[in-house]
Amino acid sequence: MQKLPETAVEYERIDGRKKDELRPITITRNFIRNAEGSVLIEMGNTKVICTAMVEEKVPHFLKGQKQGWITAEYEMLPGSTNTRKSRDRNRGKIDGRTMEIQRLIGRSLRSVMDLKKLGERTLWIDCDVIQADGGTRTAAITGAFIALHDALSGLLEKGVIKEMPITNFVAATSVGIHQGEIIMDLCYEEDSSAEVDMNMVMTEDGEIIEIQGTGEERPFKKEELQKLLILGEAGIKELIAFQKEKLSI
Amino acid sequence: MQKLPETAVEYERIDGRKKDELRPITITRNFIRNAEGSVLIEMGNTKVICTAMVEEKVPHFLKGQKQGWITAEYEMLPGSTNTRKSRDRNRGKIDGRTMEIQRLIGRSLRSVMDLKKLGERTLWIDCDVIQADGGTRTAAITGAFIALHDALSGLLEKGVIKEMPITNFVAATSVGIHQGEIIMDLCYEEDSSAEVDMNMVMTEDGEIIEIQGTGEERPFKKEELQKLLILGEAGIKELIAFQKEKLSI
Amino acid sequence: MQKLPETAVEYERIDGRKKDELRPITITRNFIRNAEGSVLIEMGNTKVICTAMVEEKVPHFLKGQKQGWITAEYEMLPGSTNTRKSRDRNRGKIDGRTMEIQRLIGRSLRSVMDLKKLGERTLWIDCDVIQADGGTRTAAITGAFIALHDALSGLLEKGVIKEMPITNFVAATSVGIHQGEIIMDLCYEEDSSAEVDMNMVMTEDGEIIEIQGTGEERPFKKEELQKLLILGEAGIKELIAFQKEKLSI
Amino acid sequence: MQKLPETAVEYERIDGRKKDELRPITITRNFIRNAEGSVLIEMGNTKVICTAMVEEKVPHFLKGQKQGWITAEYEMLPGSTNTRKSRDRNRGKIDGRTMEIQRLIGRSLRSVMDLKKLGERTLWIDCDVIQADGGTRTAAITGAFIALHDALSGLLEKGVIKEMPITNFVAATSVGIHQGEIIMDLCYEEDSSAEVDMNMVMTEDGEIIEIQGTGEERPFKKEELQKLLILGEAGIKELIAFQKEKLSI
Amino acid sequence: MQKLPETAVEYERIDGRKKDELRPITITRNFIRNAEGSVLIEMGNTKVICTAMVEEKVPHFLKGQKQGWITAEYEMLPGSTNTRKSRDRNRGKIDGRTMEIQRLIGRSLRSVMDLKKLGERTLWIDCDVIQADGGTRTAAITGAFIALHDALSGLLEKGVIKEMPITNFVAATSVGIHQGEIIMDLCYEEDSSAEVDMNMVMTEDGEIIEIQGTGEERPFKKEELQKLLILGEAGIKELIAFQKEKLSI
Amino acid sequence: MQKLPETAVEYERIDGRKKDELRPITITRNFIRNAEGSVLIEMGNTKVICTAMVEEKVPHFLKGQKQGWITAEYEMLPGSTNTRKSRDRNRGKIDGRTMEIQRLIGRSLRSVMDLKKLGERTLWIDCDVIQADGGTRTAAITGAFIALHDALSGLLEKGVIKEMPITNFVAATSVGIHQGEIIMDLCYEEDSSAEVDMNMVMTEDGEIIEIQGTGEERPFKKEELQKLLILGEAGIKELIAFQKEKLSI
Repeated sequence: MQKLPETAVEYERIDGRKKDELRPITITRNFIRNAEGSVLIEMGNTKVICTAMVEEKVPHFLKGQKQGWITAEYEMLPGSTNTRKSRDRNRGKIDGRTMEIQRLIGRSLRSVMDLKKLGERTLWIDCDVIQADGGTRTAAITGAFIALHDALSGLLEKGVIKEMPITNFVAATSVGIHQGEIIMDLCYEEDSSAEVDMNMVMTEDGEIIEIQGTGEERPFKKEELQKLLILGEAGIKELIAFQKEKLSI
Repeated sequence: MQKLPETAVEYERIDGRKKDELRPITITRNFIRNAEGSVLIEMGNTKVICTAMVEEKVPHFLKGQKQGWITAEYEMLPGSTNTRKSRDRNRGKIDGRTMEIQRLIGRSLRSVMDLKKLGERTLWIDCDVIQADGGTRTAAITGAFIALHDALSGLLEKGVIKEMPITNFVAATSVGIHQGEIIMDLCYEEDSSAEVDMNMVMTEDGEIIEIQGTGEERPFKKEELQKLLILGEAGIKELIAFQKEKLSI
Repeated sequence: MQKLPETAVEYERIDGRKKDELRPITITRNFIRNAEGSVLIEMGNTKVICTAMVEEKVPHFLKGQKQGWITAEYEMLPGSTNTRKSRDRNRGKIDGRTMEIQRLIGRSLRSVMDLKKLGERTLWIDCDVIQADGGTRTAAITGAFIALHDALSGLLEKGVIKEMPITNFVAATSVGIHQGEIIMDLCYEEDSSAEVDMNMVMTEDGEIIEIQGTGEERPFKKEELQKLLILGEAGIKELIAFQKEKLSI
Repeated sequence: MQKLPETAVEYERIDGRKKDELRPITITRNFIRNAEGSVLIEMGNTKVICTAMVEEKVPHFLKGQKQGWITAEYEMLPGSTNTRKSRDRNRGKIDGRTMEIQRLIGRSLRSVMDLKKLGERTLWIDCDVIQADGGTRTAAITGAFIALHDALSGLLEKGVIKEMPITNFVAATSVGIHQGEIIMDLCYEEDSSAEVDMNMVMTEDGEIIEIQGTGEERPFKKEELQKLLILGEAGIKELIAFQKEKLSI
Repeated sequence: MQKLPETAVEYERIDGRKKDELRPITITRNFIRNAEGSVLIEMGNTKVICTAMVEEKVPHFLKGQKQGWITAEYEMLPGSTNTRKSRDRNRGKIDGRTMEIQRLIGRSLRSVMDLKKLGERTLWIDCDVIQADGGTRTAAITGAFIALHDALSGLLEKGVIKEMPITNFVAATSVGIHQGEIIMDLCYEEDSSAEVDMNMVMTEDGEIIEIQGTGEERPFKKEELQKLLILGEAGIKELIAFQKEKLSI
Repeated sequence: MQKLPETAVEYERIDGRKKDELRPITITRNFIRNAEGSVLIEMGNTKVICTAMVEEKVPHFLKGQKQGWITAEYEMLPGSTNTRKSRDRNRGKIDGRTMEIQRLIGRSLRSVMDLKKLGERTLWIDCDVIQADGGTRTAAITGAFIALHDALSGLLEKGVIKEMPITNFVAATSVGIHQGEIIMDLCYEEDSSAEVDMNMVMTEDGEIIEIQGTGEERPFKKEELQKLLILGEAGIKELIAFQKEKLSI
């Protein structure tokens, strides 16, 4: 893909980053000892615990289909946001945004899995945000992939599965338009005043798993979409390189 | 946008349509007499009742902000699907897919509204699917826009509001990749076996309000995305032309 | 039964009807193509979609009893009433009135069925009110009977069942006392200011399946009850004649 | 009303009663010291605790209307039935039958009240069945009337209200057809095999507040309805006589 | 255990009791005829109905373990308190205090049972408070033990079980510190202004099953704890003597 | 308090600790930047995030009382346990054990607060267990105290409150009887096979805030209780010394 044009001098990001710059990323593997795979991922001030746990059964609708399943759940801890976020359990229903996000995480991970190779078992992915500063869903996908990889490597070592079911690397980032500028990996303050917000989930080969773009403040032009796509792909490539380094692959 | 290339001879759609052809569309205005705006929209066998009703207050988070709000709800009647769909109320929680859809409808309509001009009132948009054959969310958006327009015209006539708050036309369609072919406006059978499914919401000028593309069966290439975008825009232009005709604008 | 006495000149019904006159009735069969039986019934401005769908199992309490079951659900669409009716699913519990009505519909239909002849399957009856103007529960029963009949005729044709399980026709109407006058088939405005409101469900032979009379504003005399019974029976006979015509029986 | 004909020799009721005989009735006033009015009513083996408590506000829909309200709740204790009845709270929703019953109790009591004289306050009526043997809803009405009367007498004495808001006595009974016989006040075993079941709520003058008749096993004839009405009225007159004796009125 | 020192002259309990005096206790066996065991226990003005019912299966987590289970539920009737207590079912969730209490009752009874001897069945203990004046949880335990004993004696007589599974007597009381004084069996008024509140559950031999002490108003000293323990044991011995008398053991 | 007697040679704890030895403890302050106070507390393998957040209002029952409140919530992340713990929000109700624990945390912290000095505001304490190995509730109390202290110090610095409302230090530990031995600070494996389990919450002066002892497997003797009390006090003193060191007080 072509290089992005130089950015104008006068636009400054709140945290001093360049427009096409990701936040500093840290991934701590084996963060929780009880889960088969677990990761603490930090993208700047966004911190998410991702765990992958194995259950030896599949959901009802897959019984007897000789394949596995991946179910993801996402939640924000009450202290993760500036104003305390009240727990979903107290309202007795799950927040619409939470639903959307956990469905996205599940779809993204399933799309790089050969579920037949998993056998009749479920991998539960839990993404719990302990500190939120924008981009929690994309950090969750990027981190959960590592937790999933670790859990599956464990199953492979123990001989529970014969072949690695993962078919591709996957990572995600947000891109957006903020004060007319196309920027990478929005932090909360940028995100909440962005005109356009787009989440992208892609494979190592730059193929698209999921793309969700929203004109929050105004509709956006096709040309802007093209620029967002280019920027997003660049960010995801960087993230996947980082994942590979972490997994020493 | 450029014209689509001719389609190959050997691919046949289940209902005989051309690959770039929308299903027959019908919009019946004033379908329900109790609602300020109401529409029955039919896209082929998909039928959705869309109503717009006015409530003279805003949600808690907007109190005193001198602006209005639009809230959308979506539901499928139990008889709308081949296998009876059990009611959400019986499970005591709303289906994740339902949540996603009604949030999409709300965002789409709000993005073509000047909410200040609405004043401190809420427009409730209800989209109830009475017969489902794929594309219910995009039909809901396309139909709800008319119901919304009718409700607002009513408020304008009565002098409740001074100016029309609608800033742009909006319609939506799905496009996808099915057996390797890029096709328009998928019916249920196509949708459930599609490799890629993308919902687009656009304005009259071809600007993007929302784009959601998912590689259901496999990741998809950037070139495929480009073709999907072109096809979707063509469909939406056709839908907006139809909306205008219906509203005699 | 004896004829009703002439009505006094000075009492006028809001919609110009005679005191013993039903509202215009329309029944559209096969309204929803996904359901085995489906009907749009209109009684004046009251409009209800009734569907009948077959499920090849019975509720837990009937397992192994070699008989079938009929379960009815009733709901009002948010746009069906003048002031938007909020969805039950959002409160996480079903409205008491809704409960009462759907239990009444289920009982009424079961009472004209030989459930043994149905075999171990459930017929789900869904009555969704899309426009409400009084008498929704009685319209639901009258319409649901046709949907049920159509669904069962389908099962009979396909040889799934050997004999028609329906043993009798059933229809329902409301009668009431309004400003001291005994009137038939109350519309919403009449109903909300009636002194006495009575719902009757009867068979073709004028036998009673269900009778529910309430002194909303005052207790009522036994003589008034007698007059209400005579009027209700006359209305139901008319409705059953209409049902037969529709089914060409 | 005319006297009932002699009953045939060969039909015997399970508990040896005559066909037109009520079960032995006991009413213990001031059963619970914390409630303004409270009663333990026993009809044979059916035992219900009825309390009436005053709250100094009205439901939202009555604010500022200068009138009061009566709300009734009904519940069966887990040990009240032969097979333990699981608590509604554990299922997170109220049983349909429970809903029907508590709405009936509330309507019945409101219909003999001048709610203006009550002032802007709510009387909460709670009917908790501690032992069930049929006829719990009618016993609840008959007993709750006494609890209500006691609570209102207390308010009157304290000068909280100026006039007694009760306008009439009210009691209730069930009548039914069992093995072809018209019988009074069905116990559980009779009720569960009855062909027709009818609940009647009446005033002292024999006027009807509520009548609910159901052909459980078969539709019933108009002549049968007439006989049920006569029998029910006789029972209720007896019950009201008993109430008066208890209240020394 | 040593005798308690004489109490100071100037402290007077609200109901005139001595500091180390239990309230008058009454236990009525076979209070509800439908339950296998049932008791009305009265401790002063606190009145609780306790039932024990047998279900011929065990909870999921015990399937195939060849042992039984005891599950306890606790609820307060709306009229049991001075200000009406709204039903848990209406809020769709169980009160935290209720949860705590019913778990305590279940644990207490299970600790004196050999669950193997019970076989694969569940004993449901229901404690419904009909009048509350403090100490409802301890009265519930003391009364439920008798209901449990009666239910098990019934199973033994019928030969359903071979040996009595009860291994020990159990009773409970509250003790506390009120205005600096150590007192027995607090009534509601004492309890709500107590500095320290402690619930004790003990066996006949003075062994501890459960002890829960809370410094409501202030932390309490170890010496105070010792005095509370001595007093509580004395009360429980008295209660167990009363239980034995009731059971003629 | 007197020293504990030497332990027998042959009993070995699963993790090699002495019977009276706490697990290694770590407290990381300012763990989450969005909360006014936040701590990661680790007791061996048990890890809990505790946050304290300020809300400028009080619960309904305290309005206008010129005092503040502390509300605590507790939850275990799904990956915190060996077998994945399903989220409470999915069952639509809070686990009984969770309720008990969060009520305990709230009471414990309130008992060392002068709520008048807090003013009309609420401190929300959230304790989220990210890794569980026994003693999560006691770790939560010990850690939450530091988070609370930090949040209040912040309010004091900003001048929002005039005086520190904390009146005393508080910490908690579990003690128990395992294979007949009295041991300190049980890990999960010890806890799940303990005969007796006791949680203690105490102040710096060795005064008792809360004591909860349960004979899980058998009742326990008064002498055993005395030994447990001595051991628990020793542990809590050690914990409070550690808290002081952390806060440099």
